[in-house]
Amino acid sequence: MDREQVGGWLATAVAEARAGLAEGGVPVGAALYGPDGTLLGKGRNRRVQDGDPTLHAETAAFRAAGRRRTYAGTTMVTTLSPCWYCSGLVRQFGIPRVVIGEAATFHGAHDWLAGHGVEVVVLDDPECVALMRGFIEANPVLWQEDIGIDAEGDDGP
Amino acid sequence: MDREQVGGWLATAVAEARAGLAEGGVPVGAALYGPDGTLLGKGRNRRVQDGDPTLHAETAAFRAAGRRRTYAGTTMVTTLSPCWYCSGLVRQFGIPRVVIGEAATFHGAHDWLAGHGVEVVVLDDPECVALMRGFIEANPVLWQEDIGIDAEGDDGP
Repeated sequence: MDREQVGGWLATAVAEARAGLAEGGVPVGAALYGPDGTLLGKGRNRRVQDGDPTLHAETAAFRAAGRRRTYAGTTMVTTLSPCWYCSGLVRQFGIPRVVIGEAATFHGAHDWLAGHGVEVVVLDDPECVALMRGFIEANPVLWQEDIGIDAEGDDGP
Repeated sequence: MDREQVGGWLATAVAEARAGLAEGGVPVGAALYGPDGTLLGKGRNRRVQDGDPTLHAETAAFRAAGRRRTYAGTTMVTTLSPCWYCSGLVRQFGIPRVVIGEAATFHGAHDWLAGHGVEVVVLDDPECVALMRGFIEANPVLWQEDIGIDAEGDDGP
């Protein structure tokens, strides 16, 4: 993997995350790149913006890439460690590589993916960490909703 | 679980699957039910209809149920064994029960869910089997695309 190329790929995902934050949404962004480095699709979490709980950043990027016969050689780039839902997507569709901005604020299922042959790269990117840390502090209930943590007793949305 | 109630729930999912078949789509349907038996959302695979590869039947039903703070006590009913993607959804959001029409034509990740504490009921429903068997025979390439089987050499969509 080319370090400069990966930096550019992460920048695409971070731009999506920042746009999501500006919209009042969950600031996670993602992009799906083809074997030759072509951007196939990008997107961001749209729970708040569209009222759609199925659109995590990774699924939004996957959707934007449209119908495809194969995901051979593709790379899913995401600002945050993918949850079980998004990791299940990666496994089912045979996406062979996942590049992750950070896994410090949320540790999803990327170890599971690595254990099933997916190449996983965690970048420990300070900008990604800062984005999520600020968001979670300001919006703990929304964040819990987005990852399915049942926080009974809090006010519903 | 009440046998009559479960039969009614499956009928909702089968109606979705049949509607999908009539639209030229992948005939899998699903419905999410609340703890008291209220229908929260239903849907069908929309790969063909919307050109959207993220909408399997289970994710379509989950989307239709809108934003929720908790999935405690809910049941996901689906005509077909859920793939890794849809099983990841169930695990991430803590859906405690999955009712499956059949797992004969496609064996997804329901054993994995059962191993992680999800109550899994497989009904071996002949109508669900017949629906999928006929569809797969008539549309093997479309079916492979829907579950991410890379069938290189075939004509792409």
